[in-house]
Amino acid sequence: MQDKLEYFKKLVNKYLRKVLKPSSNKIYHCMRYAVFPGGKRIRPLLTLATAHTCGISPKKVLPVAAAIELIHCYSLVHDDLPSMDNDDYRRGKLTVHKKFSEGLAVLTGDALLTKAFDLLSLADESKQRKSQAKKNLQVINFISKSIGADGMISGQVADTFISKSSSKEGINYKKNLLNYIHLNKTAKLIQGSVIAPAIIAGVKSKKFNALQNYAKKIGLAFQIIDDIFDKSQDSNSKQLAYSLLYGIKESKKKAHQLVKEAKNELTVFGKRAKLLREIADYVVQRKN
Amino acid sequence: MQDKLEYFKKLVNKYLRKVLKPSSNKIYHCMRYAVFPGGKRIRPLLTLATAHTCGISPKKVLPVAAAIELIHCYSLVHDDLPSMDNDDYRRGKLTVHKKFSEGLAVLTGDALLTKAFDLLSLADESKQRKSQAKKNLQVINFISKSIGADGMISGQVADTFISKSSSKEGINYKKNLLNYIHLNKTAKLIQGSVIAPAIIAGVKSKKFNALQNYAKKIGLAFQIIDDIFDKSQDSNSKQLAYSLLYGIKESKKKAHQLVKEAKNELTVFGKRAKLLREIADYVVQRKN
Repeated sequence: MQDKLEYFKKLVNKYLRKVLKPSSNKIYHCMRYAVFPGGKRIRPLLTLATAHTCGISPKKVLPVAAAIELIHCYSLVHDDLPSMDNDDYRRGKLTVHKKFSEGLAVLTGDALLTKAFDLLSLADESKQRKSQAKKNLQVINFISKSIGADGMISGQVADTFISKSSSKEGINYKKNLLNYIHLNKTAKLIQGSVIAPAIIAGVKSKKFNALQNYAKKIGLAFQIIDDIFDKSQDSNSKQLAYSLLYGIKESKKKAHQLVKEAKNELTVFGKRAKLLREIADYVVQRKN
Repeated sequence: MQDKLEYFKKLVNKYLRKVLKPSSNKIYHCMRYAVFPGGKRIRPLLTLATAHTCGISPKKVLPVAAAIELIHCYSLVHDDLPSMDNDDYRRGKLTVHKKFSEGLAVLTGDALLTKAFDLLSLADESKQRKSQAKKNLQVINFISKSIGADGMISGQVADTFISKSSSKEGINYKKNLLNYIHLNKTAKLIQGSVIAPAIIAGVKSKKFNALQNYAKKIGLAFQIIDDIFDKSQDSNSKQLAYSLLYGIKESKKKAHQLVKEAKNELTVFGKRAKLLREIADYVVQRKN
């Protein structure tokens, strides 16, 4: 990863540590466990890189970037629960419910999600201008729709409760369902990571649409690659996965094609989009 | 309940029905199950009555009132889970996890909480002015802090995971812990129901403080009465309850005292606070 992206990752982790500082409050302990050391931080990196591409300071969108990472972590904590995917390990560590308890894992996810909206609303920052407030509200609205009942959660419902009963359905039904799951469960939050800073930067029409398409394409590519890892690790009980329906070779081809298209979308930004292009490449090149 | 409050309740239910309209999306079905027919709707009534008291149209704060009720419902759905309070019934109906499944109950709570922030951020309403946007952001910030890791969730953690291990502790430890639980688990969201419309109305200093004190006092009174109901129904496994630590007679006396004090706080509003006084009385007079 390029130096600049490594620097962004450090900024995000530092900000997250500030937000989730040690406290006697037990739930903070669980929240920190769920968030650190963390994974690739792809979503907040997208947020900072998009800010840079749109010509505003990446530091300005740190609260948004951190909020999106907390939302991602919340979704993992709840997804891992015994009543959902029932996973004992996540990134080589015990999952939150295995480490603490199921009840605390539910509350940890709740607390991470709530903290995200706290960060997104940093309204009482004294110097904040009213025009900025309106943009921040638009971001909250966009993010809540991206991750709510018509977004990420609908993808989780389909993945956890509908896909398992799809074994008798035809291949087209399965492909459509899988596409719906990927789009909602993964791509919508990735899209949020890109669109939120674009809203804050006040990017309009052609550039806005370019970022929207870029995000959707890398979101899908990201999930296709994830499915391939899941299959190669052979630890997955999912009924539906891109690599299962299309085969690994075809899946990789599709992911590379999507990333190529995603990068093409960025032409309108010229050299400024270098970091976003790099993140797109990373999505298909990563090893885990 | 007075005609005006009955009318407010109808407004809130109508708005909630509009927000959670029937859809092919399964999660909406679960969300509606959790929200309707619903209980007393005390919190949204407080929001509308506070708007009236502060001289703004109650209809203006309907999204906020509905958001607060969704947050209340989310907290009940997660609280009822087997890994938390493990309740099979709520308001005479099967709890969400009993009716559907545990996994869907987790996601239903998540979706209700997310929808609440969607409502609180109705930023893209075309006519919204920038000064209003700043106030809305302040409301989101206040609510997210009230219900987050330092608010409602800390109360739930203490109630579910700490109070059960408090049997060997002294009476003063228990009383302090119970006070902490009540203040966070119940009073903070009730306070949010009153403070949110006060922020939107632009109420300042003396009146703002009066509303804050009013809300805190009825929040505590509300929970004390709840504890008494729990004890009389003998269906409760809680280690800590006001009625257990202080006795029923003393608890009722304390609740009435708090409501009296709460009403006294409203003097500064004169006759305009009639509805808030009535809600305070209702808190100690209700039969369930």
